[in-house]
Amino acid sequence: MLEMDHVALQTRDVAASVRFYVENFDAEVLYEDATWAFLRMGQGKLALVSPEQHPPHVALRVSEATLAQAAARAGKQIDKHRDGTIGIYLDDSQGNVIELICYPPGETAYEKKSRD
Amino acid sequence: MLEMDHVALQTRDVAASVRFYVENFDAEVLYEDATWAFLRMGQGKLALVSPEQHPPHVALRVSEATLAQAAARAGKQIDKHRDGTIGIYLDDSQGNVIELICYPPGETAYEKKSRD
Repeated sequence: MLEMDHVALQTRDVAASVRFYVENFDAEVLYEDATWAFLRMGQGKLALVSPEQHPPHVALRVSEATLAQAAARAGKQIDKHRDGTIGIYLDDSQGNVIELICYPPGETAYEKKSRD
Repeated sequence: MLEMDHVALQTRDVAASVRFYVENFDAEVLYEDATWAFLRMGQGKLALVSPEQHPPHVALRVSEATLAQAAARAGKQIDKHRDGTIGIYLDDSQGNVIELICYPPGETAYEKKSRD
């Protein structure tokens, strides 16, 4: 089953953007460092990314099997991210980037955090 | 309560993009015309918009009261859209556009459709 996981927006100042979304839209910080943050906003999630590191994108959550199939079909290598998620970026042919993202069970920062 | 309502991506060919998201990601078409489409993807929604008409944006769903307050604070006029929703665009100061959108009860294309 395909689910929308998050939207990623670019910012040159992650800390200032985190403050903006927390103060204006009640965002909850799930992860934050100098070049990347991950926020919960209502039932959705927002990533704030550095323009040098990631394109703006919409991420769809998939299983490891679906990700592996899609990567093979697209001829792409699966990237591992600092939070333990894995994924690939796809182009929608109109300049928009779609990420297929997978949260391998027991491997991500969010699960480890919740077990503390 | 703030909820993420949809993400809007720009496209120069709405029909082709609708096909792309339906074929690749099992999107369901909620609304489509020549310059705008609205798709359900998993638990999320994706808008496909013409670059001349709308910026790419993330839309948060709010009540009429919250929208009216935010519009007054921002000094913005509330726009009415072709599907009956109303909203304003806000700038996050990093080049990203956030829409506050409201679905007035009984006024939108989606509710009317579901009553047919």
